[in-house]
Amino acid sequence: MPGIVEFWFDFSSPYGYFASHFVDQVAAKAGRSAVWKPFMLGSVFKETGARPLADVPLKGPYCLRDWDRLGRYHKVPWVLPKPFPIATLAAARAYYWLDGQDPGVAKAFAREVFATYFGKGVDVSPAEVVADIAEQLDVERAALLAAVEQPQWKQRLKAAGDEAITRGVCGSPFFIVDGEGFWGSDRLAMVADWLDRGGW
Amino acid sequence: MPGIVEFWFDFSSPYGYFASHFVDQVAAKAGRSAVWKPFMLGSVFKETGARPLADVPLKGPYCLRDWDRLGRYHKVPWVLPKPFPIATLAAARAYYWLDGQDPGVAKAFAREVFATYFGKGVDVSPAEVVADIAEQLDVERAALLAAVEQPQWKQRLKAAGDEAITRGVCGSPFFIVDGEGFWGSDRLAMVADWLDRGGW
Repeated sequence: MPGIVEFWFDFSSPYGYFASHFVDQVAAKAGRSAVWKPFMLGSVFKETGARPLADVPLKGPYCLRDWDRLGRYHKVPWVLPKPFPIATLAAARAYYWLDGQDPGVAKAFAREVFATYFGKGVDVSPAEVVADIAEQLDVERAALLAAVEQPQWKQRLKAAGDEAITRGVCGSPFFIVDGEGFWGSDRLAMVADWLDRGGW
Repeated sequence: MPGIVEFWFDFSSPYGYFASHFVDQVAAKAGRSAVWKPFMLGSVFKETGARPLADVPLKGPYCLRDWDRLGRYHKVPWVLPKPFPIATLAAARAYYWLDGQDPGVAKAFAREVFATYFGKGVDVSPAEVVADIAEQLDVERAALLAAVEQPQWKQRLKAAGDEAITRGVCGSPFFIVDGEGFWGSDRLAMVADWLDRGGW
């Protein structure tokens, strides 16, 4: 049985947003499923000593221009949201809560979180905004608002972050296929080639 | 007249090494020329606060595996040299000195420096080793050894580093095409698409 394609990302990661449009097709073309795994990139930054890209001299201006350009290249809506970056705890906890009930709904929700933040520029850090997004998918908002404050789902997200570090996830997005990690949205073509050829 | 494809790199950059195998074909396919511009990545690191990749937690182990894998993916010789990384002042100064005489020889020399360091694992930091490499291309070794100590060529390399920072080069390799910067060897496909479509 072919393995899954793991898609590790932070909801506040522009490169994660761009990758989110393509990862399922890349997996499906190889007869595999993509499993989305949000985590807090900040916990990885603590290990690597990285700072948010937009704040880094030279890299910041480069990335701002690159993101605009990637929107055009991929024909995907793009706005630089304000504030940016943000803590996406509520969205990530809600994702795992939904995933426990219906992975399809969880993925649709994740797409909508990305589209709301990077497609429309709306701050998705407040739990109320996350609940608004989920409500469009017929998720009961009171249940979601309760879930994101429950220790179980806080712990679930924390465990995802711990797993990310244990497994060598060094940024967002990060793909794991057949035990191989691939870092960056610009590696999706390489992931596709790996799947197609069964590795190199 | 179509513009050139600028290829900015450090001779001690594995991703620069991988890109060096493909950048000329990418440019030529679009009827353009690639111009190679070595610089000292350390001067960019001073701006960005970056550290050599292999020393960074999570990213270090990722890159070591990635480089091995890229060798297989690109069917290009690869060994992790010792020591790594190194200061490549002598090679970069020699490059600019040769480029002033014969850009074709300079590029052949640059390929051979990369092949010696990352293909064979030989430390290319000593000027004597750089002279050995150039000698195979019929470059007089005494002239090269003198040139890499001359203020003119020291200054030429320093000017390249200053220009890199002024123009937003934030890592190695970095391509500049039609005023657009592209960072990373995994962006060469995007550079090719840019050249093919005349931008997006």
